[in-house]
Amino acid sequence: MAQKPSIPKGTRDFGQMEMARRNYIFDTIKGVFRLYGFQQIETPAMENLSTLMGKYGEEGDKLLFRIQNSGEKAALAPEKGLRYDLTVPFARYVVQHREELSFPFKRFQIQPVWRADRPQKGRYREFYQCDVDVIGSDSLLGELELIQIVEEVYRRLGINVCLHINNRKILAGIAEVIGAPDKMIDITVAIDKLDKIGVEAVNAELKERGLNDEQVAALQPILNLSGSTADKLTALKTILANSEVGLKGVEEMETVFNELSIVNCQLSIELDLCLARGLNYYTGAIFEVKALDAQIGSITGGGRYDNLTGIFGLPNVSGVGISFGADRIYDVLTELDLFPKELQSTTQILFATFGDTELRYALGWAKELRAHDIAVEVYPEPTKMKKQMGYADDKKIPYVAIVGGNEMETNTVMLKNMATGEQKQVTLAELIDNL
Amino acid sequence: MAQKPSIPKGTRDFGQMEMARRNYIFDTIKGVFRLYGFQQIETPAMENLSTLMGKYGEEGDKLLFRIQNSGEKAALAPEKGLRYDLTVPFARYVVQHREELSFPFKRFQIQPVWRADRPQKGRYREFYQCDVDVIGSDSLLGELELIQIVEEVYRRLGINVCLHINNRKILAGIAEVIGAPDKMIDITVAIDKLDKIGVEAVNAELKERGLNDEQVAALQPILNLSGSTADKLTALKTILANSEVGLKGVEEMETVFNELSIVNCQLSIELDLCLARGLNYYTGAIFEVKALDAQIGSITGGGRYDNLTGIFGLPNVSGVGISFGADRIYDVLTELDLFPKELQSTTQILFATFGDTELRYALGWAKELRAHDIAVEVYPEPTKMKKQMGYADDKKIPYVAIVGGNEMETNTVMLKNMATGEQKQVTLAELIDNL
Repeated sequence: MAQKPSIPKGTRDFGQMEMARRNYIFDTIKGVFRLYGFQQIETPAMENLSTLMGKYGEEGDKLLFRIQNSGEKAALAPEKGLRYDLTVPFARYVVQHREELSFPFKRFQIQPVWRADRPQKGRYREFYQCDVDVIGSDSLLGELELIQIVEEVYRRLGINVCLHINNRKILAGIAEVIGAPDKMIDITVAIDKLDKIGVEAVNAELKERGLNDEQVAALQPILNLSGSTADKLTALKTILANSEVGLKGVEEMETVFNELSIVNCQLSIELDLCLARGLNYYTGAIFEVKALDAQIGSITGGGRYDNLTGIFGLPNVSGVGISFGADRIYDVLTELDLFPKELQSTTQILFATFGDTELRYALGWAKELRAHDIAVEVYPEPTKMKKQMGYADDKKIPYVAIVGGNEMETNTVMLKNMATGEQKQVTLAELIDNL
Repeated sequence: MAQKPSIPKGTRDFGQMEMARRNYIFDTIKGVFRLYGFQQIETPAMENLSTLMGKYGEEGDKLLFRIQNSGEKAALAPEKGLRYDLTVPFARYVVQHREELSFPFKRFQIQPVWRADRPQKGRYREFYQCDVDVIGSDSLLGELELIQIVEEVYRRLGINVCLHINNRKILAGIAEVIGAPDKMIDITVAIDKLDKIGVEAVNAELKERGLNDEQVAALQPILNLSGSTADKLTALKTILANSEVGLKGVEEMETVFNELSIVNCQLSIELDLCLARGLNYYTGAIFEVKALDAQIGSITGGGRYDNLTGIFGLPNVSGVGISFGADRIYDVLTELDLFPKELQSTTQILFATFGDTELRYALGWAKELRAHDIAVEVYPEPTKMKKQMGYADDKKIPYVAIVGGNEMETNTVMLKNMATGEQKQVTLAELIDNL
């Protein structure tokens, strides 16, 4: 009895149309990365388990896919797991290859990652990440370039977005000035949820996490700061007057906004003091990008880290990076119908086939057209016209060439435009011009 | 104590240069696939173990990487394994999605596969395969197109190759006429090794596999057939006169060679009766491509199969496909120094940085250049000239722009050609022209 074929829960097959659309996203992103001198690397799907464990918190460790060792020496071989994100393999890569790299090291990486998460709508066990990082410099030019990359990628994709930006140093300063300098992480974890659970619940969580009433009260005006970015930064300078780290964060933001105006950045950018991002390795700027015309959450995010490679023995190397969420970008482009129409077709012309003589005639033409870089198919067997036309329709092939005795005598083909139904007899030169 | 970072045995990191070279190979291959109307699909890295088991022989089963189930319902979840090749997932895909596909279905797939093989030189536990198949037609146009694809891919890559072709039906016919019709597999397995172990050892193996002296003797003239392809086919027609399947194989070969002459194929092709290819699912033409100027074995191979999807419940669907070995092609291109030189650089110009004013000036220029699709880097911090020039050298960036007071006054930059050392002062318009 034959097996009924299926794939593991939370994984996906990508058909031809989905691949064309996904490649459009990846190619657009890569094209922009390259304009800024970022170059591609790849790392193996499997890493030693010791590289991965303890890097994603207790919950993350549980979500690692482990690989069984096999072969004679299975018991002696190091345990392995599938890549959970691209950040930890990147840190491992930088440390392992540090002698070969020139710093600042600008790399991008587009590969799948795997998480043993409970599959649900929009959450998969295998999905692609597109990461771009510059490591080995603490220059704020890194932040600037990543923001310019966000602007250009979404301009090219046609998606209206707003970039939310904050700075972990400002958050540390806030914790300091409200008298809870050791609670920076607790504060960020709680206020990160403001959008989702509202101010009441955040305040309750802050108290649970050990802030007293006074501290929670002191936090409120800061969370509610409004006005222009310049207004907010001015207000913050007063609020954070007694926090060195806080003022440093404000200064960094000022520098970035100043440089953004020099390059005439048109991106909508909001200084968002409630943006915290959960990951503990961030130490400076943090970013999140939201699509304005779709309800889907963050489609790009990242930030500055000062010690990502420390765990692998290379401390104090500062870097900044962002990650584009390909699956969510795909969903936004689909929802807003923004995929270019021409992605649907790769073959430009199909030669219908009626017999051996016609087939041989078509083969010669196909060779000539391909020499002009035109994608051609020849229907492989003489079957009903309707079936061959149906094939062209299914594959969205815009033209079908039909060959009969008359055409072979006059060295032409009958060219059918599949959109209009129009037919005309053309020579090879005319056909090449036409396509 | 920090961990010393490493990756699992038999896996590889790909740095920026290797990625540029690998992408050059993949892009070349994809470009040719598309000219023939093949479209890309992708399948998940992990398949249900039941999809994979029993498809690669007993030895293959042992080489599957298995994934440990995790989470609450681990015991209930189907076992999973990493993809071992692209052929079985392709067969599974075709059966699972048969209602959505239009046949003949022309697909290509370029993804990594994993095998728990003993790692050694040139053999990895993670490597990419590039497969192209047309399924759902028994037309020999499939064979023709794949041969044309081989011709064009290697023409574009600049590698001189010879394509060896044979037909399983001819092999079946030979088994029939020497009086050992049930020994076709044994004969193919043995003669497949002719190149490696020589005729004596092959004959010994044939006897071990149950052929008698007479049968082995009858096989010799066939293995030693020489002359042109036409000569060999003519001789085979006599030899196989009493085998229906054998004559069918000869006829198929004649048709393919006839069509190859119609399209004026320039590829070196050899009808090689000792080519057997181990995989049992082949039923018609079989191919192997060897590089003429490098000792590396087969760099592309494949063949016709009549029942690949049968195991998944869709019998009697004929297809034909080949697989390009990216790693070996990489090695050949390296050995023969055939990679294009321009792959080495992606950034076209680096702006050196000496201070904030110069940086701001450079940022404006960088923005203009990128708007003209020129890849630009701005060195992120004012450090020693030598270090900045070293960075440009390491990344093989051909031009460095230097900005001083004079340049800012005259709205120019000093452009240094890194290959010649030549410097000249240029305006933005001149620079754009120059790049």
